[in-house]
Amino acid sequence: MPKVIDHDQRRREIVEVAKQLIMDGGFEAATMRSIVSAAGFANGALKHYFDNKDEIVAATFESVLADTGENMSISAESPLGPVDGLRAYVEAGMPLDEPRIASARILIALWNHAMTNPDLARRYQDLLRTWRSDLIDRITNVRTDPEGEGAPTSETLADEVITVTVGAHVTSLMFPPGDLANNYRAYIDEFMARVAD
Amino acid sequence: MPKVIDHDQRRREIVEVAKQLIMDGGFEAATMRSIVSAAGFANGALKHYFDNKDEIVAATFESVLADTGENMSISAESPLGPVDGLRAYVEAGMPLDEPRIASARILIALWNHAMTNPDLARRYQDLLRTWRSDLIDRITNVRTDPEGEGAPTSETLADEVITVTVGAHVTSLMFPPGDLANNYRAYIDEFMARVAD
Repeated sequence: MPKVIDHDQRRREIVEVAKQLIMDGGFEAATMRSIVSAAGFANGALKHYFDNKDEIVAATFESVLADTGENMSISAESPLGPVDGLRAYVEAGMPLDEPRIASARILIALWNHAMTNPDLARRYQDLLRTWRSDLIDRITNVRTDPEGEGAPTSETLADEVITVTVGAHVTSLMFPPGDLANNYRAYIDEFMARVAD
Repeated sequence: MPKVIDHDQRRREIVEVAKQLIMDGGFEAATMRSIVSAAGFANGALKHYFDNKDEIVAATFESVLADTGENMSISAESPLGPVDGLRAYVEAGMPLDEPRIASARILIALWNHAMTNPDLARRYQDLLRTWRSDLIDRITNVRTDPEGEGAPTSETLADEVITVTVGAHVTSLMFPPGDLANNYRAYIDEFMARVAD
């Protein structure tokens, strides 16, 4: 009986290896050669799964976008009430621990690629739209201040949370891992007090 | 009399050419060849000013960091009162028009390089520290709510503005230029109302 190789499973393993290489050494560290070596493949075996580095890069970014979408839907399904649910949703996106700070390296590489890859920019744009729409619903559900005169709209509050989260991925990488985590926890406390106290 | 060439002036011109190429076509578009061609130099003439592309990249990032620092000190010297001065300072950093959105492309390339270049990360870290310290002073000067129980600290408000500004550079580039500008204007209005109304 021929050996059955799960093609999709192998592709996922290769993508995980590529992610780890980018997290450890930056985007340039993920070469075809380093991926083959880290995955324990024979030279040339990678070609059965991906034609070239661009395909691996595309699959890696797809995987990061899918992870992010999955994190969001997990927190959306949580049994917490709307206030704790909003907090969990906001915290889920923030780089508050070393694994998430390390994975921010992949996002910076992704954004950099999106500058010259309109498909990738569009994919990230879709993610930003979904994220914004989820946040608007969640914020509207918990607000104690009605949207009266002078009060910010839920749209503006959602934009604030999204840009803080995106920006925190960049700033966290400029300092030793975790140095800014307490600053961002304080921000989340302040945001929650503002919308739901 | 021999022709006098201002060496530093030429280097600045080359850096401006490199910036423009990165803004127009992404980081990969700024090659030694494209810089020579866009600057109108003879082949090989570039070597009088920079040894290799890495040196041009370093000088380009230095220039972007210097520009950012200069924008900050200009708004710091403005004759506006403390409230309008804070608003001008916050607005100066935000990608509210096409030139600033285009220059965000250089920042994303810079952050991406900082992942594998500790010197560059440290330079950006210094900029973030100065920015934070300036913002804390400016916010403290205008606050109408004292830092009592439940009120956010000026540090937390400064971290919020910095991460929103950094994040807005990323998100603005994922949409057609200017599509998000009004969202960020609304955020600035909301922030100002919160700290100084």
